[in-house]
Amino acid sequence: MEERRQTIEYKFLRQNTHHPVPKKRFTFAIYLGLFHLAFMVLMGFFTKYNLGDGVSAGKNGSNLYAMFMDVHSMMFIGFGFLMTFLKRYGYGAVGLNFIIAAYVLEWSILIRGWLEAGIHGESDFTLDVKSLLVADFCAAAVLISFGAVIGKASLSQLIIMATFEVVIQGVNELIGLHYLKAYDVGESIYVHIFGAYFGLAVSKVLQGTKEIESTKESSHYHSDLFAMIGTIFLFLYWPSFNSAVAVDEGQTRAIVNTFLAITASCISTFIISLLVGKGRLNMVHIQNATLAGGVAVGAVADMQIEPFGAMIIGTVAGILSTLGFQFLTPRLNESFVHDTCGVNNLHGMPGLLSGIASAIVAATATRDKYNGNRLYTFYPSRVPSLNSTEFANLSLDATDFANGGLGRTAVMQGGYQLAAIGVTLAMAIIGGIITGYIMKLPIIEQIEDIEEMFDDEPNWLTPEDYSLKLTEVRVQSREGDEEMQEKRMLSTST
Amino acid sequence: MEERRQTIEYKFLRQNTHHPVPKKRFTFAIYLGLFHLAFMVLMGFFTKYNLGDGVSAGKNGSNLYAMFMDVHSMMFIGFGFLMTFLKRYGYGAVGLNFIIAAYVLEWSILIRGWLEAGIHGESDFTLDVKSLLVADFCAAAVLISFGAVIGKASLSQLIIMATFEVVIQGVNELIGLHYLKAYDVGESIYVHIFGAYFGLAVSKVLQGTKEIESTKESSHYHSDLFAMIGTIFLFLYWPSFNSAVAVDEGQTRAIVNTFLAITASCISTFIISLLVGKGRLNMVHIQNATLAGGVAVGAVADMQIEPFGAMIIGTVAGILSTLGFQFLTPRLNESFVHDTCGVNNLHGMPGLLSGIASAIVAATATRDKYNGNRLYTFYPSRVPSLNSTEFANLSLDATDFANGGLGRTAVMQGGYQLAAIGVTLAMAIIGGIITGYIMKLPIIEQIEDIEEMFDDEPNWLTPEDYSLKLTEVRVQSREGDEEMQEKRMLSTST
Amino acid sequence: MEERRQTIEYKFLRQNTHHPVPKKRFTFAIYLGLFHLAFMVLMGFFTKYNLGDGVSAGKNGSNLYAMFMDVHSMMFIGFGFLMTFLKRYGYGAVGLNFIIAAYVLEWSILIRGWLEAGIHGESDFTLDVKSLLVADFCAAAVLISFGAVIGKASLSQLIIMATFEVVIQGVNELIGLHYLKAYDVGESIYVHIFGAYFGLAVSKVLQGTKEIESTKESSHYHSDLFAMIGTIFLFLYWPSFNSAVAVDEGQTRAIVNTFLAITASCISTFIISLLVGKGRLNMVHIQNATLAGGVAVGAVADMQIEPFGAMIIGTVAGILSTLGFQFLTPRLNESFVHDTCGVNNLHGMPGLLSGIASAIVAATATRDKYNGNRLYTFYPSRVPSLNSTEFANLSLDATDFANGGLGRTAVMQGGYQLAAIGVTLAMAIIGGIITGYIMKLPIIEQIEDIEEMFDDEPNWLTPEDYSLKLTEVRVQSREGDEEMQEKRMLSTST
Repeated sequence: MEERRQTIEYKFLRQNTHHPVPKKRFTFAIYLGLFHLAFMVLMGFFTKYNLGDGVSAGKNGSNLYAMFMDVHSMMFIGFGFLMTFLKRYGYGAVGLNFIIAAYVLEWSILIRGWLEAGIHGESDFTLDVKSLLVADFCAAAVLISFGAVIGKASLSQLIIMATFEVVIQGVNELIGLHYLKAYDVGESIYVHIFGAYFGLAVSKVLQGTKEIESTKESSHYHSDLFAMIGTIFLFLYWPSFNSAVAVDEGQTRAIVNTFLAITASCISTFIISLLVGKGRLNMVHIQNATLAGGVAVGAVADMQIEPFGAMIIGTVAGILSTLGFQFLTPRLNESFVHDTCGVNNLHGMPGLLSGIASAIVAATATRDKYNGNRLYTFYPSRVPSLNSTEFANLSLDATDFANGGLGRTAVMQGGYQLAAIGVTLAMAIIGGIITGYIMKLPIIEQIEDIEEMFDDEPNWLTPEDYSLKLTEVRVQSREGDEEMQEKRMLSTST
Repeated sequence: MEERRQTIEYKFLRQNTHHPVPKKRFTFAIYLGLFHLAFMVLMGFFTKYNLGDGVSAGKNGSNLYAMFMDVHSMMFIGFGFLMTFLKRYGYGAVGLNFIIAAYVLEWSILIRGWLEAGIHGESDFTLDVKSLLVADFCAAAVLISFGAVIGKASLSQLIIMATFEVVIQGVNELIGLHYLKAYDVGESIYVHIFGAYFGLAVSKVLQGTKEIESTKESSHYHSDLFAMIGTIFLFLYWPSFNSAVAVDEGQTRAIVNTFLAITASCISTFIISLLVGKGRLNMVHIQNATLAGGVAVGAVADMQIEPFGAMIIGTVAGILSTLGFQFLTPRLNESFVHDTCGVNNLHGMPGLLSGIASAIVAATATRDKYNGNRLYTFYPSRVPSLNSTEFANLSLDATDFANGGLGRTAVMQGGYQLAAIGVTLAMAIIGGIITGYIMKLPIIEQIEDIEEMFDDEPNWLTPEDYSLKLTEVRVQSREGDEEMQEKRMLSTST
Repeated sequence: MEERRQTIEYKFLRQNTHHPVPKKRFTFAIYLGLFHLAFMVLMGFFTKYNLGDGVSAGKNGSNLYAMFMDVHSMMFIGFGFLMTFLKRYGYGAVGLNFIIAAYVLEWSILIRGWLEAGIHGESDFTLDVKSLLVADFCAAAVLISFGAVIGKASLSQLIIMATFEVVIQGVNELIGLHYLKAYDVGESIYVHIFGAYFGLAVSKVLQGTKEIESTKESSHYHSDLFAMIGTIFLFLYWPSFNSAVAVDEGQTRAIVNTFLAITASCISTFIISLLVGKGRLNMVHIQNATLAGGVAVGAVADMQIEPFGAMIIGTVAGILSTLGFQFLTPRLNESFVHDTCGVNNLHGMPGLLSGIASAIVAATATRDKYNGNRLYTFYPSRVPSLNSTEFANLSLDATDFANGGLGRTAVMQGGYQLAAIGVTLAMAIIGGIITGYIMKLPIIEQIEDIEEMFDDEPNWLTPEDYSLKLTEVRVQSREGDEEMQEKRMLSTST
């Protein structure tokens, strides 16, 4: 062990800098109140309870509420604490995550309700546990986007982003599921890809051409431990996320596959992190890339990919994600597109991997593999058309497939899965750019000064220990006769 | 950004002050052991397992165990961590919460068992998942009271408080449910109102006329993050708290309504916090008032209040609670009644709001609204009396309503809901005052010195970093030619 | 209050000591990758999904997935955070716990699958929620052993340990359950006893005769609060751990008994901690011994021990465990066998207590007590042999007991329970010693230097606030005229 004894002299910067609160923030609070008021009125006009099935709204209903609770935890504990790694943005991570998620839950219940009602030609819709679960899925997309811009967007901007993203994400998922009929049980395409690239597009617009570099964009020892609370809860409940809407034996497959894939990505992340970290593990990788398997298996979680298939997908996702965090993000951050939490690595690329896997699985799915007609619960478009001879020969369950299908082949279905990725990427990026420019409108509070980024002080009343920051350390070392001086700028919160 | 570079000189106070341990604490440990021994003996005499229904004791049984676990988490993680916001009472928050909750679980199983057995004219009772759930509800009342006195009462006093409160709370709930027949599915009246005002009465008696003001009664950056763990878990699982004992379609309503109300209170809290905080969010509000919707919807959670009704209740609760934290508590704390966690704002006032809502809902409840006879599962007293003509016309399910009811009208039922609030307030306040005076008996350890309040050192062995506290900072600032000195007293734990 | 005002002068040691990374660590990363690759290939050859029962694989299936999730949380949140009490090994606690658990889940799915298949003369096996649950039980054993060696073993050594322990633990459980037919619903014998003594044997071999004493083997204020997250989650979900595989009314008993036992151990721990701590509570006790009741009731959790019996077991376990932490561990640590987390106190001794209880319960179990033939679901060996007259008289359910049993008496069954303890101890200790020597092979990375123990720096990239450690404090006190100087070595992380 090499050690040098040092005498150290401190300088502190009392950063009770009283960032002045812009007037726009108050205006915004009023707006937020009006939005919320509008939501209440709209709920009053358009929704009532769905009491038909009691708590158990799904076919596999007995577990639906418990699984919903797992997913609900992922939104508030998982995402909220995952982002507390930022040493001076802990309140913002868990607190802003809290308000964004709450806002999105209300808004997406309306949007999803309307979209669903619209398809069925109805004007109002009902609420049950399933509705709340769907709202949580929608929240996931927005919270992923939040991960791309956290620390750089004002609360006002974040709510604007959420408002638009909920609509665009909902429309995109409608296109994918109901028009393209591309299957995605774990929402890897409609939530992960969408959320990541929407967020990155917004981030790019906010950033413009300026460089974002701040010493505050790093962790402290304890902030990393807080972040691990988020990581572990996401890891634990991911099987519920991917299997909550799966049915029958597909649900067992979704649980087993997600468990295996995310476990495999944990292992491959540790290996790669050790290798690229020159023998030392990197908390950023462990907090994030370990979860990539959950994303990557999402779109195929309830399919017959076999346990080893799930493990391969998870392993590749962990490798890809860790390499992304290590090599890709630092380069992109400097100049091109700043990605605070590295959502491209945890949600973007693994989501694309999952989408591609879903195309391959779809293109090779046969009636034999899926217990005959059960195949059509995943791919209803593969039901032969109503007046075809194949249809007549199949003796299909009248209630579900009475009107026949589109008669797609396996390869066609694979193509539609790819089409869903393409449409999602387009909607996310274009939607994100437009939303980003709206967020930059001068009537909305902006964060321009790098000193205000990644810092809770502008948004929160902070306690005494927050503003007392060690910023300069003068080190006097003695090695033999030699006396050396070193000055180092620090920024520690405690 | 306005910044001043400063040179700072420290003085530290090593507060290894060795508060002497009073002998009464040892005596008390013996008493606690004797109580616990007595509980075991009593359990031996009075209880056996209820094995009739297996794990699923309720009508909606398949979820009962999972919902119980959610509620159980709220007691130990939720309440325990919520109170860790105190920078120097983190061990006390999570640790004393732990022992109080454990003690109450044992004691309330007995008390609730006896009360229940007494009603049915039996002498012993059985245990199942439902019993454990009921014990957790009782623990909630005591932990709310704990929130009012945390940091100011000795461990001995807390156990004394728990011992009496369990009995009084149990008797009050018995009066409310079985004699007044006032319905309260989410325990807003019997747990939240009771717990809050019982605790405040105890707090007032302990305080007497002295002022309680301590620099230790505040948070640190990381202690606030620990507290958010509690907040988020309470937020997440509140739907389970309010719906666990609801039945049939009432359970779906309870879940949906609680979800919407607590989400709405989260949003209204953020808005009001921003406005009253002059543009900055206040962690105290976010940690507490965001949850007020869960309390406020409790007594009507499974009723036909419609989604927008739940949102209105939650919104109002969030506003009320935030304003309470901002304007009411600071004034009350100074001189009148000190409320460490502000339980009046989170449990007291929102509980009253819920009680009033329950009276309005009851007074307007019709057979049409509740699917005919289903109305009587909520308000059995509204069943017509046995020999009335209405009774004969109703063709009621023989097993449940064979003996007829009290023939209450809707408005009468509303009156009884208000009566339950009145009785609860009276029992809580009088019970709390008596309990407070018992807690002040000289044989019981008191905390007199303000220096021993809100501090873990008197009760716990503390680690080295706890006793090293920065207490004085001499600041030398230079602005132009001018040199200024400023001395500031601090109290930071790390 | 006795206070002395002091002026304090600091010296800091910047311990950016750059422990050199040994080459073996890289080699090991490759090995870990190869293991993982092998697991994938083997999964491909030997397993497919068990889709027969959907999510609900057990008789009491509706809760199985939710209970599995509770157990899963105990492994990653519970064990992971429990060990974060070490002030400079928080990353290691939650991070290495993460990789070890993930690795064990994969490996034990294979091992348990093969063992199970072997018994039934089959060559491959299927996966469902039950398989994942069993893998989590196996992980518990390894994580308990990890508790004995945490901070003293390299990542490579830990993976080696896990690799061997999974096999030996699996074989031991097979012997116990299938050959000795000793019943242990909560795995107190096969997981807790095994894990503790396997880990202690490994620890002893690693330690050899050297003394292990480090100032880093202690907590900070906030590291103790992180640890309480682990404690509380273990406390909450222990009823699920002990009841997950119980059936019918046995599951209700397992839930109630575990709830009562662990609550009782919480209370007795607080009492004893207060007494032995000279009036102050000790966080080490509260974090650990409070849970001893969950271990101690494990092997008899679903038996007719009556609620007060569960409470007695829990109470004794809490006392035993607290006394162990207070008096036994400090002595053993110095010279004989170092036990970082005190697993002997939380898992070893309470496990033995549970095993002995299981022998007594078995030796006194009658058909009357267990609803007639239901007795045989616990003790199938007590079914009379096929051609005995007793067998003919019993009119047993043909499917379960068609082949008759071993005709054991109650006392014989009690003896076999004791035999299972003996075999488990032997397998654990011998297996641990052999594994320990394998871990000491020179090709595997060792931690020799006490300075590298209980420290995250050798394994992890650490943030700036980690390496800035206050190590020396010069205290100038003034009492009256007298000026005193005191120098104290510290090691604080923040």
